[in-house]
Amino acid sequence: MQIPAGPLLQTINSPEDLKKVPKEQLHQVCDELRQFIVDVVSVHGGHFAASLGVVELSVALHYIYNTPYDQLVWDVGHQAYGHKILTGRRDNFISNRKYKGLSGFPKRSESEYDTFGVGHSSTSISAALGMAMAAKYKGETDRKSVAIIGDGSMTAGMAFEALNHAGVTDADMLVILNDNCMSIDPNVGALKEYLTDITISPTYNKLRDDVWNLLGKLPVGKRFTRDMASKLEAGIKGMVTRSSNLFEALNFRYFGPIDGHNITKLVDTLKDLRSIPGPKLLHIITVKGKGYALAEKDQTKWHAPGLFDKITGEIFKKKYDIPQPPKYQDVFGHSIIELAEQNKKIFGITPAMPSGSSLKFMMEKMPDRAFDVGICEQHAVTLSAGMATQGMKVFCNIYSSFMQRAYDQVVHDVAIQKLPVVFCLDRGGLVGEDGPTHHGAYDIAYFRCIPNMIISAPMNEQELRNLMYTAQLDSTTLPFVIRYPRGEGVMPEWRKPFEEIQIGKGRKLRDGKDIAILTIGHPGNFAAAAIRELRKDGITPAHFDMRFAKPLDEELLHEALKEYSKIITVEDGTIVGGFGSAVTEFMAEHGYKNELRMLGIPDRVVEHGTLKDLHRECGYDEQGIANAVREMVKETSTVYSL
Amino acid sequence: MQIPAGPLLQTINSPEDLKKVPKEQLHQVCDELRQFIVDVVSVHGGHFAASLGVVELSVALHYIYNTPYDQLVWDVGHQAYGHKILTGRRDNFISNRKYKGLSGFPKRSESEYDTFGVGHSSTSISAALGMAMAAKYKGETDRKSVAIIGDGSMTAGMAFEALNHAGVTDADMLVILNDNCMSIDPNVGALKEYLTDITISPTYNKLRDDVWNLLGKLPVGKRFTRDMASKLEAGIKGMVTRSSNLFEALNFRYFGPIDGHNITKLVDTLKDLRSIPGPKLLHIITVKGKGYALAEKDQTKWHAPGLFDKITGEIFKKKYDIPQPPKYQDVFGHSIIELAEQNKKIFGITPAMPSGSSLKFMMEKMPDRAFDVGICEQHAVTLSAGMATQGMKVFCNIYSSFMQRAYDQVVHDVAIQKLPVVFCLDRGGLVGEDGPTHHGAYDIAYFRCIPNMIISAPMNEQELRNLMYTAQLDSTTLPFVIRYPRGEGVMPEWRKPFEEIQIGKGRKLRDGKDIAILTIGHPGNFAAAAIRELRKDGITPAHFDMRFAKPLDEELLHEALKEYSKIITVEDGTIVGGFGSAVTEFMAEHGYKNELRMLGIPDRVVEHGTLKDLHRECGYDEQGIANAVREMVKETSTVYSL
Repeated sequence: MQIPAGPLLQTINSPEDLKKVPKEQLHQVCDELRQFIVDVVSVHGGHFAASLGVVELSVALHYIYNTPYDQLVWDVGHQAYGHKILTGRRDNFISNRKYKGLSGFPKRSESEYDTFGVGHSSTSISAALGMAMAAKYKGETDRKSVAIIGDGSMTAGMAFEALNHAGVTDADMLVILNDNCMSIDPNVGALKEYLTDITISPTYNKLRDDVWNLLGKLPVGKRFTRDMASKLEAGIKGMVTRSSNLFEALNFRYFGPIDGHNITKLVDTLKDLRSIPGPKLLHIITVKGKGYALAEKDQTKWHAPGLFDKITGEIFKKKYDIPQPPKYQDVFGHSIIELAEQNKKIFGITPAMPSGSSLKFMMEKMPDRAFDVGICEQHAVTLSAGMATQGMKVFCNIYSSFMQRAYDQVVHDVAIQKLPVVFCLDRGGLVGEDGPTHHGAYDIAYFRCIPNMIISAPMNEQELRNLMYTAQLDSTTLPFVIRYPRGEGVMPEWRKPFEEIQIGKGRKLRDGKDIAILTIGHPGNFAAAAIRELRKDGITPAHFDMRFAKPLDEELLHEALKEYSKIITVEDGTIVGGFGSAVTEFMAEHGYKNELRMLGIPDRVVEHGTLKDLHRECGYDEQGIANAVREMVKETSTVYSL
Repeated sequence: MQIPAGPLLQTINSPEDLKKVPKEQLHQVCDELRQFIVDVVSVHGGHFAASLGVVELSVALHYIYNTPYDQLVWDVGHQAYGHKILTGRRDNFISNRKYKGLSGFPKRSESEYDTFGVGHSSTSISAALGMAMAAKYKGETDRKSVAIIGDGSMTAGMAFEALNHAGVTDADMLVILNDNCMSIDPNVGALKEYLTDITISPTYNKLRDDVWNLLGKLPVGKRFTRDMASKLEAGIKGMVTRSSNLFEALNFRYFGPIDGHNITKLVDTLKDLRSIPGPKLLHIITVKGKGYALAEKDQTKWHAPGLFDKITGEIFKKKYDIPQPPKYQDVFGHSIIELAEQNKKIFGITPAMPSGSSLKFMMEKMPDRAFDVGICEQHAVTLSAGMATQGMKVFCNIYSSFMQRAYDQVVHDVAIQKLPVVFCLDRGGLVGEDGPTHHGAYDIAYFRCIPNMIISAPMNEQELRNLMYTAQLDSTTLPFVIRYPRGEGVMPEWRKPFEEIQIGKGRKLRDGKDIAILTIGHPGNFAAAAIRELRKDGITPAHFDMRFAKPLDEELLHEALKEYSKIITVEDGTIVGGFGSAVTEFMAEHGYKNELRMLGIPDRVVEHGTLKDLHRECGYDEQGIANAVREMVKETSTVYSL
């Protein structure tokens, strides 16, 4: 069902159209854009509060800049709904985040206005600098690059790296620091405090002017000599022009802070800045969720609220008569508290995902033992390693796809040193609507090649608890990865007593004939369902829940490979280099010649959609597994004879 | 041969002994320590200039701090020779970097004084913060943590992440910023300029005092009112106490800069700082290579000069009568210039390795198209991606083990977007004396699981050139990895005309009987040598140089697997998930049942030593390959029958 836009927005099919709107009417464009976002997201879902916060900025940027020739890079990109709607995607916006529909993030293949694909934080300054440097090299001197980055994203190291480089170039780029004091959860760290200081101190902003005004009025007399005055002037000049500001210390010209919801001020400021050469930073203050009162009040809840009644603000939740399985993240969040109550060595660390990881429960209950370090995966891992050298048992909880940010730290600071840090990788496997940038597809493969790593994936909530329990035992002396999927598990009654799991030990769930299914992690449930169906047709695969991708349960593998001529591996991860690949290595090493079929994420970029859509598309949902079994049972082996 | 230390150093077997030396004699300890480093490194090799630069700091730290209870974390660690010599390893120091000898870096398993294993840059603040937080939690209130980090390392994002977090803790930690304006090559970036400003401006350091002194003397009269004065005072106070300094903006108390070669001043300062709580930063100025005139003058050359005559400063180079093969890095460094002269779209980027990568040649010749971005692998990759969106062909040259730092950026910013960035991974495979932190062991495995990647490894210099040529063609539209090893190649006459290589195509080097050796990269030369030996005994393996780990040459693989019942794969990379693993996946997919043996880096941490030592230890040198062939030829197959 199409959702109507307001009368003015209805006429804007491109930034060209927007530029025709008189400046005085831009506030109306903003109002209609905001309303349209509310209308669509309340019915179709998606990220919410972030885009509301940059409505004015989105309008102002496309009003002033010559897009797409001028290049806007939205950091993270879940705030770019306004940008999408203004750049020809208004009528298609209802397909946002849907299977085969618009991406929830800017994406190069979707629009020429999306100059750089985003999803993970803090890439925008590097990318925009690259564009600016290329433009300069190509002699496109009138071409501008703009990175729009939040104060949360600014805490990640790579943003600093980019500033440090940009500051010594003469690249014609503007960084817009969109300061709303939030990541998904409230932003943390010294930088945030610093920005807050700049913002809330009424004196600070006028300081520079004041100092200069005063200097002009300094009286010179006996006690205050001309020499002293000039010394003072030099000193203050030095501070003010060079180092009064963190960004100026990095050679950026700093402007602001200004109100990011004042469209006129924004337009005027951007117009001025567009003609100032070199690297410069505009600090704007916005309110995440701006214009939707409830979202302004609880920004974390309204980051991506799901469907809601836009009038009452009621967030729709499905109602069930019987208890439902919990989210895996909540099993983690509650279980770590139970463990930490027993084991005083346990700490919990999250890089900016207190809500998403559910570490927030422990942060509330044990604030000295659980904390958010900001969007700083690298630091989070090495901090954990540092604590581990002191005998602490740190549960470092990082989304699988964000763990890619700290790969070196896991190798260099944890694995080589054999430090028993526990990595809980939430969102392992396909994640659904967030799409390619967020799929946790590669973790088993990228960790499996690293020595000393223990890599596990629970099939259900109880297994997750037991793996967590095992990971924190003193007898566990190696880095321990537990990766589990986004969303709900399968056990309404999940809070079973903890039990130790022997490291590297899987379990046989079902005996069978001819064919064995080896699963790791939650697709074990798909396999179990497939087997129930297949048995109705007299096909009886065995089922092994391998639990560990490393170390492999060699005993169980020998059993499976000796007793079953056909093997299917199933994982919610890349087939290349993953768990199935580990089985092929094992077979080669031991000379097994079973027929093998590997199910999992194929070697291509899987787009967004519901988890159901994507599991089906990749062929490892219940139906996909059943089909594979049927084919294998039917097939004559196509072995080449030698 | 033992090398004698000076009379005072000879008596120091631990920091306990050092603490007994009267303060007035510490300069003699420094002199002797410096001399001992010169004596040993000139004869035994190793890193040189960095340790000379921190002689006084090393002495002062162990003099003042209660090591190992107080915890020192040396960033990178190649400057820690003084630390090692002072902490019980003087007499063993001649084994430094030798096979089974001392590590060239601090290493936990080597000494309790080595609190954290290092090698890659910028980990020290995170690790020391973890230690400080754990100490606080355990109630060890008298326990101190110190991170010693260079100005080069400070440019990496993770250092900033750690400062940002530490600044909002009350962790009792000291960061010592060892500012010598150098990485291995001169440090770059805005931060460096900022630090230089602080350092060279004679007014800056006294600024704070001056301002305060002057404020006390401001006359108040008609034209300069009390109100104006207090306004000015408040303003300046605000700047001075909160934001006059980049580190203070991040909530660190900043001290310095002080002369890092004044042992008395250092000792006094550290003594004071030891009793100041909370996060604090001491900025010291040192000269890399201090005390050895030639090293002070050419710090890059003397970073790790090899063996030299300590009197004359002559660096020994082996002399040869016939032309020798070049280093792979130089083949890269010269070939990129040849290509860039033909293709105006080519850029070269290095994160702080102009000399090590030999990009310096292009940086000299084409300064607008080749540059050093600092120790910023993450930024380097995404910057390259940004340029690639503008049609540029960027050769981003990163050591294999440092590429781990930018793993997410390759996945998220390059591979998912299919941007044709060229990654030249120098030091792919085992690297020798630098050991576990620097081995480029995992690259084939960690990149192979990522969609859209082309992964190649040349067997020799000509192949490297041809792969570089192929990578920059317009017809190459995907990310292209070329990984090559540390050190010399095999072709004295290497500058052959460029030829295109078909992507995903290997080559058969030799026909044979029964057994085929599939190699990737330089171990192809070991295999060729092994085959020459084996043929003398009538064993005639075929040899395929596969060139690409991805995409695999399926045609060639079918040929090999159909014609040869026994297969050996050889790679200078981890077996788990690597090239051999790709072959096992291919075999499983196509139902091949050949006998397979995989040679490469085993699934454990390989220590340091010469490349020869390590290749032998891992069993894929000429002898190892020959042995494997002989065993396979002899062996009865141990296949389990079903």
